Amino acid sequence: MKQTHVLEKPVYIAEWATVAGELESKGALSGKFDIALDDNFYGEENWEHAESRMQNSAVKQLLLKASVAAGDIDFLLSGDLQAQCCGSSFGISEFNIPFYGIYGACSNMAEGLSLGALLLAGGHGGKLLCGTSSHFSSAERQFRFPNDYGCFRKPTAQWTVTGSGYCLLSTDNGTPGTASPTAGGASACPNITAVTTGKIIDYGQTDANDMGGAMAPAAADTLRAHFRETETGPDDYAMILTGDLGEFGSGVLRDLMAISGTPLGDNYLDCGNLIYGEGQDVDSGGSGCACSALVLCADILPKMRSGEISGKVLFVGTGALLSPVSSGQGESIPSIAHLIEISN
Amino acid sequence: MKQTHVLEKPVYIAEWATVAGELESKGALSGKFDIALDDNFYGEENWEHAESRMQNSAVKQLLLKASVAAGDIDFLLSGDLQAQCCGSSFGISEFNIPFYGIYGACSNMAEGLSLGALLLAGGHGGKLLCGTSSHFSSAERQFRFPNDYGCFRKPTAQWTVTGSGYCLLSTDNGTPGTASPTAGGASACPNITAVTTGKIIDYGQTDANDMGGAMAPAAADTLRAHFRETETGPDDYAMILTGDLGEFGSGVLRDLMAISGTPLGDNYLDCGNLIYGEGQDVDSGGSGCACSALVLCADILPKMRSGEISGKVLFVGTGALLSPVSSGQGESIPSIAHLIEISN
Repeated sequence: MKQTHVLEKPVYIAEWATVAGELESKGALSGKFDIALDDNFYGEENWEHAESRMQNSAVKQLLLKASVAAGDIDFLLSGDLQAQCCGSSFGISEFNIPFYGIYGACSNMAEGLSLGALLLAGGHGGKLLCGTSSHFSSAERQFRFPNDYGCFRKPTAQWTVTGSGYCLLSTDNGTPGTASPTAGGASACPNITAVTTGKIIDYGQTDANDMGGAMAPAAADTLRAHFRETETGPDDYAMILTGDLGEFGSGVLRDLMAISGTPLGDNYLDCGNLIYGEGQDVDSGGSGCACSALVLCADILPKMRSGEISGKVLFVGTGALLSPVSSGQGESIPSIAHLIEISN
Repeated sequence: MKQTHVLEKPVYIAEWATVAGELESKGALSGKFDIALDDNFYGEENWEHAESRMQNSAVKQLLLKASVAAGDIDFLLSGDLQAQCCGSSFGISEFNIPFYGIYGACSNMAEGLSLGALLLAGGHGGKLLCGTSSHFSSAERQFRFPNDYGCFRKPTAQWTVTGSGYCLLSTDNGTPGTASPTAGGASACPNITAVTTGKIIDYGQTDANDMGGAMAPAAADTLRAHFRETETGPDDYAMILTGDLGEFGSGVLRDLMAISGTPLGDNYLDCGNLIYGEGQDVDSGGSGCACSALVLCADILPKMRSGEISGKVLFVGTGALLSPVSSGQGESIPSIAHLIEISN
């Protein structure tokens, strides 16, 4: 068994779209989102509806940007943090696209890209959408209800990102308006060249207010597997980008990788540290499915298409597979990290 | 876009294993389960742990029956009804197998077989486990808490099956002890020859006590797509088996299929009507992820291997994509059905 699957033919990330919440729209990536909200209710009567509408808008925006009809899409892969993944099923039902629900907690964007790339590379279908969402308030209701008024947040706590991001995967890079040739004549359309499927890793951490610390060992395990199986190291990549470890968790990952003899350098970044700006009081940083989805789709992929980032990027989505019931029963936090190698 | 993917090379269902709860072990399939429980706590301190242990035991039993080591498995696909799919992540973490979490509600067994078959047929990996679980009491806590003492159940209500079922998918049928040659010399090992991926279908039904009625239109939609795209009809199959429509929902499906000019005959059965026995007071029948998983793995697949069922079976797993929050907010029940064509 190998965890890494190198794709014989690359799968293109032909286009992408984002919807960002109020706080995120004013953060470090301000101005980079397709749709920036000034109200997290998004015109709906509750937070769950608002989250579903974000997924709905992200898909509509993506189909518009890529000039592709929903009827030309072979699969849609999506999941979210709400119990029974209702943010997804209510958000995307109108598109009438064959659907596989996925659940990898905050690693959903990476899990969708991973499974999606394997489906298309395996000859099943030509175009596929994958995406996810999270909403600060629906996540608070899901995981922390009843929320105490005026309670203190721990410094290791993270802030669930409100928003949705979607990618269009394609077996060709000929989608109108997407693939632009680089100076050398090759396409700069970002493409997936390998995936490394994560295993569930559980170091026995039980503190639901330190999910970065719980997830860091999973990210380390997947990165080590990728380096070992592809005979590469951290220096071989333009960027190594984890999903939502935050300040604390990304420090833990640096420690774990240094211990195993593959220390991460300046090319290592975490989406949880990139999405919010100075003065936004989010403790250890961003988290939630939308954290890595928004940073990837609003910042990294555009920079790969423009050539500002050149080479190979390892996108390592991290997920904490806990629930309010498991936390209440004192359980540890099993975690997972799925890795996608994106080239341009 | 086509919903049906005919596999160029079949993917074998090389082996399977089941763990059944107390009521199920005394039902219509009594004596057919690998592990039959006489206590739904299964030696654990709560129902959620018991459900996880069922998945754990099903995987162990399957690896034992197939004489395969966990280290030889390329992927494990699993999901369940608990919020954030904790029945799966806690159940299978010890096996250290690359994992994709899935969520299709009670269609999880079919979704896992569907995605799993596409992964292996696409050249990614050689062996894969897929499975699911449900537990009457953890589902009641998840979906109906607080449960009233002595409340009346509606006649359309179904009974969540307690148990877990897992299948081993393989690109070859040479797993020791599994493939037995038929009289004609061909292998009788059941194999997946096509999958039809479901779409989310929502007819606006809001009654969470009639999930069979909510899911029947999804089953009809997927069956119609399969018949249309493969140019076949109900009579071309040895059996058409839906997941958990129950007595009421399977009647709705018969009506819908008759209206669309492809009436279902005596070869149409529903797992929800097959799992419990006379005198077991389960209203409209069985439901839950384990309903279709147990009937498929304890009854149908063994009969296909022995030749008692010969030809093509359409296994149509059905799922109701609701949550306690969506029900509480008065939402309709989006549903989905994934179809697997199994031949021998």
